[in-house]
Amino acid sequence: MSRTSMVSRLTAECLGTFALVFIGCGAAVTAAAFLTPTQVNIGIGLFGVAAAFGATVTAMAYAVGHISGGHFNPAVTLGAALAGRIEWSAVLPYWVAQLVGGSLGGVVLYVIASGQSGFSAVESGFATNGFGALSPGGYGLFSVFLVEVVVTCLFLLVILGSTDDRAPEGFAPVAIGVGLTVLIMAFVTVSNASLSPARSLAVTWFVPDALGQVWVFFLAPLAGAAIAGVLYKVAFPNTSEEVLEREEA
Amino acid sequence: MSRTSMVSRLTAECLGTFALVFIGCGAAVTAAAFLTPTQVNIGIGLFGVAAAFGATVTAMAYAVGHISGGHFNPAVTLGAALAGRIEWSAVLPYWVAQLVGGSLGGVVLYVIASGQSGFSAVESGFATNGFGALSPGGYGLFSVFLVEVVVTCLFLLVILGSTDDRAPEGFAPVAIGVGLTVLIMAFVTVSNASLSPARSLAVTWFVPDALGQVWVFFLAPLAGAAIAGVLYKVAFPNTSEEVLEREEA
Amino acid sequence: MSRTSMVSRLTAECLGTFALVFIGCGAAVTAAAFLTPTQVNIGIGLFGVAAAFGATVTAMAYAVGHISGGHFNPAVTLGAALAGRIEWSAVLPYWVAQLVGGSLGGVVLYVIASGQSGFSAVESGFATNGFGALSPGGYGLFSVFLVEVVVTCLFLLVILGSTDDRAPEGFAPVAIGVGLTVLIMAFVTVSNASLSPARSLAVTWFVPDALGQVWVFFLAPLAGAAIAGVLYKVAFPNTSEEVLEREEA
Amino acid sequence: MSRTSMVSRLTAECLGTFALVFIGCGAAVTAAAFLTPTQVNIGIGLFGVAAAFGATVTAMAYAVGHISGGHFNPAVTLGAALAGRIEWSAVLPYWVAQLVGGSLGGVVLYVIASGQSGFSAVESGFATNGFGALSPGGYGLFSVFLVEVVVTCLFLLVILGSTDDRAPEGFAPVAIGVGLTVLIMAFVTVSNASLSPARSLAVTWFVPDALGQVWVFFLAPLAGAAIAGVLYKVAFPNTSEEVLEREEA
Repeated sequence: MSRTSMVSRLTAECLGTFALVFIGCGAAVTAAAFLTPTQVNIGIGLFGVAAAFGATVTAMAYAVGHISGGHFNPAVTLGAALAGRIEWSAVLPYWVAQLVGGSLGGVVLYVIASGQSGFSAVESGFATNGFGALSPGGYGLFSVFLVEVVVTCLFLLVILGSTDDRAPEGFAPVAIGVGLTVLIMAFVTVSNASLSPARSLAVTWFVPDALGQVWVFFLAPLAGAAIAGVLYKVAFPNTSEEVLEREEA
Repeated sequence: MSRTSMVSRLTAECLGTFALVFIGCGAAVTAAAFLTPTQVNIGIGLFGVAAAFGATVTAMAYAVGHISGGHFNPAVTLGAALAGRIEWSAVLPYWVAQLVGGSLGGVVLYVIASGQSGFSAVESGFATNGFGALSPGGYGLFSVFLVEVVVTCLFLLVILGSTDDRAPEGFAPVAIGVGLTVLIMAFVTVSNASLSPARSLAVTWFVPDALGQVWVFFLAPLAGAAIAGVLYKVAFPNTSEEVLEREEA
Repeated sequence: MSRTSMVSRLTAECLGTFALVFIGCGAAVTAAAFLTPTQVNIGIGLFGVAAAFGATVTAMAYAVGHISGGHFNPAVTLGAALAGRIEWSAVLPYWVAQLVGGSLGGVVLYVIASGQSGFSAVESGFATNGFGALSPGGYGLFSVFLVEVVVTCLFLLVILGSTDDRAPEGFAPVAIGVGLTVLIMAFVTVSNASLSPARSLAVTWFVPDALGQVWVFFLAPLAGAAIAGVLYKVAFPNTSEEVLEREEA
Repeated sequence: MSRTSMVSRLTAECLGTFALVFIGCGAAVTAAAFLTPTQVNIGIGLFGVAAAFGATVTAMAYAVGHISGGHFNPAVTLGAALAGRIEWSAVLPYWVAQLVGGSLGGVVLYVIASGQSGFSAVESGFATNGFGALSPGGYGLFSVFLVEVVVTCLFLLVILGSTDDRAPEGFAPVAIGVGLTVLIMAFVTVSNASLSPARSLAVTWFVPDALGQVWVFFLAPLAGAAIAGVLYKVAFPNTSEEVLEREEA
């Protein structure tokens, strides 16, 4: 990636995070439940919503992963930096690109959703994350915080492991996409499944109550990602690399 | 692909677009909602319909992608030409093959669907795209047009990125298929998700009202694809290629 | 494959067809619709049933495809022979192994399903294929026959194309599995989606009415496969192979 | 794998089994059925639950398969040992790591689920496996035992076949994940689909009745895996390996 300019990399992160919010939150807002004229529900359900997030990451990682690494999420960038996979000087620019791209996705989604008469971001929830009254299943802050830490930690382990040079080449976007899908699917009723400050912030601009809880979805995913970054390095040291380095020296 | 004859390539495009319409629209028409004798809905829903389109592209791209590139969609061919991935002289023949193949898919589907007593293309909508009264969720022209532009633009970015020689080899049909699935899934209630003039035209022959709106699904996808073709080339220049070319010169 | 004994190959075909019937038809019989104690439907629906068939082929093709080629279906073996991918002398033994393996799958499924009080193969349909009164959506013979021909033809094109030496290596089971999934999903309400004499015969032993219609699901899939075998060879000649052969001569 | 320390390998098995129980059982407990405020069911259903288990294996096998082989299940470790894929001395440590990791997953899931008022592990079943009154569809012991033997046998055949050096490289986690998904999906209403002593034990700590039946989900999966381990070796001998060994000798 050394030859790829920082402008290209930030554009890739911005586009990828835009897609993640636009498609994932779009699926949740417009299609989770949908009744035919005869009142049969043909909506995509929470399985579809989870798959929308996961498969978007797969698609965008194959599309621009060779440009930027395909993080699309500030927590992923933090974990990657802690595991030595990206230079620390890129972290802040990546975060800005991700927060901007995600929020743009939220704005375009809001414009489109407003084309349906009777649409209200606040009433629909607009795919925001939250605890207590804002949790889909009414889960409290402790459960929501714990879920986001554990789930983001597992997500980062999948990312760091599948992009390890000991893993089969080329399959990482598949592993990461299906991993994200099942992590969201399993705990979407608890916290509405954030795993990413960029995804959470992007849709809170239109739902003031959720904006007041967004700190949880900055702290918990970043904590989970940090744990995974350190854990992977300690638990699964790449000895073949070290041996190689020693031999070269 | 230089050794593959244009006849083979056009046959491949014709077959692929036939499959896309026949299977994708077939799923929407015959299986979206389906009640058991005890009135339990076991239909595939909008998730299944979206997956039918997306996975058909995956399957057909592995089947004949090595023959024609696997476009199956006039908007994809336009974007590919703008990004320098296909010769301009092939664009018009590809378009004709795609429009013919798609329409044949619509005809065969119509013949089969007519085998059920009480079937009416107009009443069922026959998987056509539209705005206003013809939008599944009643969205207006502005939302529908905007969705088709943005969604086709993202689709082309996935195509151009995953077939870039810097991306892992062989995975493009997976990326493109899951990308199309989630893009359709997220916005099917807005425009019934076209992304392709060939897919839209193919089923309007049997639904006069939809035929009157089909211009939207020519203009918007082509516009989105054109934006992506230019954007990808500008944002993610393949410097290694240029270096190589200079070295060879 | 020249080193693999015919006994190993037939065992592989027998096991694969067993799995296809046992899992695919098992999903249809035991899980298509399932109500919780509070009468919420959590069944897998027709999407799940289609995916059960398709993903079983993916899994078994990776498991034993390197032994037998992974046909698991008499129509596939016929199409492969016509396209020059398997020796003609293997066709009959393959067919026997597939019909036996599939029927064993039907028997074991019947034994397990009978463990639920009130189970009746005839009343449930036991995942059999049929037209008229035996078609899930009440489609007539003409629609059912036409669907089976076209759908099996497309299925064979995906198989022959994705295993072509010009296609990316290793991905064929993915292409074939998602191809089968969408073909079944799109037309399961018409014919209950056979595409295979072995799959159809396997479950008719327990449903006399369906046994009387099983000839359709021998003739139509074999016809569709034959068309595809010839079509692929004519439309997409592998000139690089021919050039190679001429050079070697 | 010879350079990977046993501590790393056991950590990988522990993490993988933790993820399998936490995500798979989590999906079953929190999301199988979920009603919107207007009483529309948007739950993931049994298809979603099955995919949660299967795709977790795919993700974790790409993440840490290069460390430990990615078993995450005592039955898999037994079958791998019988087929000569892992040293016998590693079996017992692997089993302990899997049972501990799985149970930790059950505990963390219990803590999170308890954050919803009114949650009861016993009343919800907590994703435990069982026969008779504890079988989702009321199936008896014979059907449940037979299903677990056959299904685990097929699962091991997919694992041993797709990781065979004659199979395409890198695709095993895909084959194994989709294989597990469809095996669970097809028979979840019979036994709630265990296939693994570690997955079964992990959630029985909170449901005393299920703990009394857990012996079935130790015996049957281990028996099915043992059959597959022996069957694969006998039916599909790797003659190229033997030839190679003889040539080297």
